[in-house]
Amino acid sequence: MTGAPAFDITSLHAFYSGGGTVHAIIDRVFARLAEVNDPGIFLHLAEREALLTQADALGPFDANAKPLWGIPFAVKDNIDVAGMPTTAACPDYSYMPTADATVVRLLKEAGALVIGKTNLDQFATGLVGVRSPYPIPRNAIDASLVPGGSSSGSAVATAQGIVSFALGTDTAGSGRIPAGLNNIVGLKPSVGALSTTGVIPACRTLDCVSIFALTVDDAWRVFNTTARYDAADAYSKDMTATGYGPLPPVLTIGVPAKPDRQFFGDASMEASYEDALGMLTALGHRVVEVPFGDFYKVANLLYEGAWVAERYAAVKAFFDSNEESFHPVTRKIYGGAKTLSAADAFNGFYALQALKRAVQPIIDSVDLFCVPTAPRHYSMAELAAEPIRENSRLGTYTNFVNLLDMCGIAVPTGKRGDGLPASVTLLAPSGRDGLTAALAREIHQTAGVGLGATSWALPPTPTITATASPDGMIDLVVVGAHLSGMQLNVQLRDFDAVFSREAQTSDAYRLFALAGQVPAKPGMIRVEAGEGGHIDVEVWRLTPAAFGQFVAGIPSPLGIGSISLSDGTVVKGFLVEPAAIIGAIDITEYGGWRSFVAAQRDQRARSAS
Amino acid sequence: MTGAPAFDITSLHAFYSGGGTVHAIIDRVFARLAEVNDPGIFLHLAEREALLTQADALGPFDANAKPLWGIPFAVKDNIDVAGMPTTAACPDYSYMPTADATVVRLLKEAGALVIGKTNLDQFATGLVGVRSPYPIPRNAIDASLVPGGSSSGSAVATAQGIVSFALGTDTAGSGRIPAGLNNIVGLKPSVGALSTTGVIPACRTLDCVSIFALTVDDAWRVFNTTARYDAADAYSKDMTATGYGPLPPVLTIGVPAKPDRQFFGDASMEASYEDALGMLTALGHRVVEVPFGDFYKVANLLYEGAWVAERYAAVKAFFDSNEESFHPVTRKIYGGAKTLSAADAFNGFYALQALKRAVQPIIDSVDLFCVPTAPRHYSMAELAAEPIRENSRLGTYTNFVNLLDMCGIAVPTGKRGDGLPASVTLLAPSGRDGLTAALAREIHQTAGVGLGATSWALPPTPTITATASPDGMIDLVVVGAHLSGMQLNVQLRDFDAVFSREAQTSDAYRLFALAGQVPAKPGMIRVEAGEGGHIDVEVWRLTPAAFGQFVAGIPSPLGIGSISLSDGTVVKGFLVEPAAIIGAIDITEYGGWRSFVAAQRDQRARSAS
Repeated sequence: MTGAPAFDITSLHAFYSGGGTVHAIIDRVFARLAEVNDPGIFLHLAEREALLTQADALGPFDANAKPLWGIPFAVKDNIDVAGMPTTAACPDYSYMPTADATVVRLLKEAGALVIGKTNLDQFATGLVGVRSPYPIPRNAIDASLVPGGSSSGSAVATAQGIVSFALGTDTAGSGRIPAGLNNIVGLKPSVGALSTTGVIPACRTLDCVSIFALTVDDAWRVFNTTARYDAADAYSKDMTATGYGPLPPVLTIGVPAKPDRQFFGDASMEASYEDALGMLTALGHRVVEVPFGDFYKVANLLYEGAWVAERYAAVKAFFDSNEESFHPVTRKIYGGAKTLSAADAFNGFYALQALKRAVQPIIDSVDLFCVPTAPRHYSMAELAAEPIRENSRLGTYTNFVNLLDMCGIAVPTGKRGDGLPASVTLLAPSGRDGLTAALAREIHQTAGVGLGATSWALPPTPTITATASPDGMIDLVVVGAHLSGMQLNVQLRDFDAVFSREAQTSDAYRLFALAGQVPAKPGMIRVEAGEGGHIDVEVWRLTPAAFGQFVAGIPSPLGIGSISLSDGTVVKGFLVEPAAIIGAIDITEYGGWRSFVAAQRDQRARSAS
Repeated sequence: MTGAPAFDITSLHAFYSGGGTVHAIIDRVFARLAEVNDPGIFLHLAEREALLTQADALGPFDANAKPLWGIPFAVKDNIDVAGMPTTAACPDYSYMPTADATVVRLLKEAGALVIGKTNLDQFATGLVGVRSPYPIPRNAIDASLVPGGSSSGSAVATAQGIVSFALGTDTAGSGRIPAGLNNIVGLKPSVGALSTTGVIPACRTLDCVSIFALTVDDAWRVFNTTARYDAADAYSKDMTATGYGPLPPVLTIGVPAKPDRQFFGDASMEASYEDALGMLTALGHRVVEVPFGDFYKVANLLYEGAWVAERYAAVKAFFDSNEESFHPVTRKIYGGAKTLSAADAFNGFYALQALKRAVQPIIDSVDLFCVPTAPRHYSMAELAAEPIRENSRLGTYTNFVNLLDMCGIAVPTGKRGDGLPASVTLLAPSGRDGLTAALAREIHQTAGVGLGATSWALPPTPTITATASPDGMIDLVVVGAHLSGMQLNVQLRDFDAVFSREAQTSDAYRLFALAGQVPAKPGMIRVEAGEGGHIDVEVWRLTPAAFGQFVAGIPSPLGIGSISLSDGTVVKGFLVEPAAIIGAIDITEYGGWRSFVAAQRDQRARSAS
């Protein structure tokens, strides 16, 4: 592959901007297809000539006008691409769509090129990737292993470097498990963020189009291009792609309590997970163990009753008249749902609602969660021996996610002792796609692992800087208990505030530890320039409504005024009324509340010892 | 009834505070029961002796500690009252609860007394009130008419003046239809606002406990007492009772477009509805016609498929083994749901989701809706001829409401030409209970109609004063250039701020004329109580988003803090940074910016002359 660029978008765009041609990349795609020689990946391939024509129609390279200019991608074969048959890995179900799925249309408009349609667990039911009448895609890292599914072909195509990225779908974990098993990134958006118009439903109320990519930056770019409200999809939500930027210095990350972790005998996976948590701690984040029993109960609901019936409902007419067309395992699952009553469905919803209540306090207690992507690797032989049980076990850390309306991203964390890929998945409530992706990026860069099954390295990329405040968002300087990791930071999270940056005030501020505040709080007051100190602060970003509600809830003696920062900008932020300074201790010399709190802690520790 | 007070809470509390006893009122309850002599209202009555004991246990009259002190109420017999059998109007289903439903417990704790359990359409399925094996409650206004249901007994008990208020339940309209047909108020809270713990489900995902009362103030007081989050009810929501206060001068009120209105031949009902809309216009509100076809489609979903199955699911085990115990009509409805599949249920949800999308722009275009409560009155004979069809028609303006997560309140609008009661229902998105109730109050007072079937008049009540800000709006104290008539007041108008009231600060503020401000501005600063003066201010009200944008635009040295007013409330408002006071003139003695500006003007005038 000497001379050819890596297929991550950064490298490809560097290649194009240096004069490289899309024709050359299309040639590489077909050369790579031949090298990999896996007949299970694609169910349909674009014609080379058609791709060259599309390439010529792109016009001159312009990554601003077309952020995915000349980027080859693959599409899971339950998502429509006009002019390519959609099979859902069920040949008898096959049809020829005349229109692109909304996400495919958006990607084409952004300059991306569809290479072909990829294999999957039939009707996207499965996490193994082998429930298909076609040849099975081979795990890109080790062909003796299960590739993972249901988006097996999309994940393997990406991991093998045949395409830059691929679309999958994710109802139970199909956008995460195969990413984890093939050493790539799998972004599972918030439910409703990406349109499902033109996608064959599995569970319409839970389905997500998902993104496989070589790097987190690439996955985010695709997400940013496709996260659009679609009036034609009744479950579409208007969720702008925000929050992918600098991380708060301290995130509170929930992890399953040790006794609740399940690896089904894969000690190597367990060790790699421990290593990943160690990495998070080393990065300065706070890892907290939380009980996971109720999350597992939610996960069990997905294949017990109501939601299996939803899969059946999606293809009812076809199934009822073509049962023999189904893969035997799929047929068994769908057939079991035929007898479920509407009353059973409602009982499922009640069970879910009760569990939602039970887990909400746990969800509220953290910024996000970090779980193993899959509990273990399975060999093809192991799966063949227990096809249902091992499929179910693969979903240990994924099945509950869409039912709880969370977003997630699977990211490689390095190689295990035995050389197989290790991966964690970050999970958070709907809308925190940007936060999970930003942490995934930090993890991927720290792990420094190669891309998929290729020889390509993670490209060096600059620190992501905070983009300009998205339309109408308001910056807020926090000084004390609202700093990341502090007691009241949860209030900012509750308002979906997005961390923007660390900053310092100008030298016109004095900081006081206020008397009688619970939790302990400082108050900052402006003085003449030069008569104060530069105080460490954080800037967070809120929508006007959230900012308004937040300000309305601030108790006396604190208020919101204008704060001059050392970079010359003026930002809204916390000030204290002068009357409250009486009896307060001037702690300006500490340079900030975090330093003062640390000093106090050290002092207490010394006193105690 | 000479000498006995009316049973609205205002009148009863006036009676108690004047020395009247609860024993006397309990006597009146039983006397009134005898006078009305309708064996269909109550399925179970409290023992007189037990009530007297409860009355004695209330302690001295104290409406602050117990806002429902000594108030008699009735409970629909699908809601548990400890020690009284719950039948759901199905004797074979009957059981003896040992605990109160959460709402009943809250009402008892507030001093209210349970008189008994009331008749209903069996298992709350029906809008007619006659699907019961017990004697049928008689319409309180005209015994030849259908009483309305399913909460027939509760509505009639209230309308007959036997109790001050009664609890009902409302899934399809059971808390509104019988209110409309019996000339009383029916408050149907937002779904989840009142706990359903201890209530036999009809459709668990839609059920609401509802409130029948003689006046809107009474209904609101009961709502305010019972709207509490209940962790034991997985569908409970944390919705504080807010927004019942002064109305904006102009509300935009959506009404069905003329061609979409349905009265099924009742010209008198149509005329009374036109009159009600005329009243709204005369009150200064803006009445706009909107298409109603999609609302009717939502309404039809309630008895076509999924949600009928939910009713069946609620009593499945009992129904499957005791079909013969059911009322014939109810049996037919529930029996039809047995064959519905889980796939049918999901197809119902998809249809609803699509319709939700279709009506959302209409909902967003108005503050609230005003619809007829029932399209017409039916005689008992008419209903007997077409029991299913006429029941269905009664739900024309009610069936869609809970499916769309709206709140509603039915309120009498006067007597029709033929002397029968006229009623409208106000509807709004979840959480606007206070706004709908406040407008219902305005309508009720304007209509000036007597209470229920009694000879009691609507008691004179003072203008309601602003309590909590409606709909999450935020109060803002302005001190200087933002006062009405001053230069910057236009900024408030640009944000659609609503004037709330004039006010004064506590005596802990000093006011300064700031140096170098254009336009001239004061700065207010908090000092020790008693060391400042009472400063004249104005309170304006903004949405959180407007408040947020407004605060974000305030330049240094001004900021927003918490201001203590002389009435003891604390409101967000303008403060100034202490650094800005240097060189400023203390103008506290003027008592406010407006006085200072006037004094300056006078002085300039004198100098000039």
